[in-house]
Amino acid sequence: MLPELKYDERGLIPAIVQEIETGEVLMMAFMNESSLKMTLESGFTHFWSRSRQKFWKKGETSGNVQEVIEVLYDCDSDTLLVKVKQHGFVACHTGNRTCFFRRLDR
Amino acid sequence: MLPELKYDERGLIPAIVQEIETGEVLMMAFMNESSLKMTLESGFTHFWSRSRQKFWKKGETSGNVQEVIEVLYDCDSDTLLVKVKQHGFVACHTGNRTCFFRRLDR
Repeated sequence: MLPELKYDERGLIPAIVQEIETGEVLMMAFMNESSLKMTLESGFTHFWSRSRQKFWKKGETSGNVQEVIEVLYDCDSDTLLVKVKQHGFVACHTGNRTCFFRRLDR
Repeated sequence: MLPELKYDERGLIPAIVQEIETGEVLMMAFMNESSLKMTLESGFTHFWSRSRQKFWKKGETSGNVQEVIEVLYDCDSDTLLVKVKQHGFVACHTGNRTCFFRRLDR
């Protein structure tokens, strides 16, 4: 039974992915209700691609899959925090460990 | 000079807030370009409230402000990761340490 999560007008909810051991925030992507169910049932992260309008399993091509340890949701029930064990070193399609590899100047 | 960030059709960009020392993901909220500038210039997180249609400085009432250590942006330039020193123990308006205090059952 999923709790009453709040999806946006496109039926999507943002999912922050965090590495369970290192605490690194690896990426942020969107899930819809079906990809969340696929994630919970398979134990590996699945997202909804807005640009391609299709499901994708993270790491399906690269092998850098994300094993789900736990899924948390926030006080507003409109954001997910997915704690994972990242398989393979790389989470970002650019070849970087995390998608957040650039810093804003102050 | 801010890089070319991608704001959504409402002019907003999601900002994940992470505690720099503990690695905890504390919350996710939206910034617009002005609140991002206020954040960078003041050194404390400022967001845009969609429901109230106004700026808010995190912790302005409670005193639980967030001191900005660094602001990262992702490979798609459409999500921010703000690393902060959380002042006061509580980041969530519910009185919890983090907004992500509930877990989905598998």
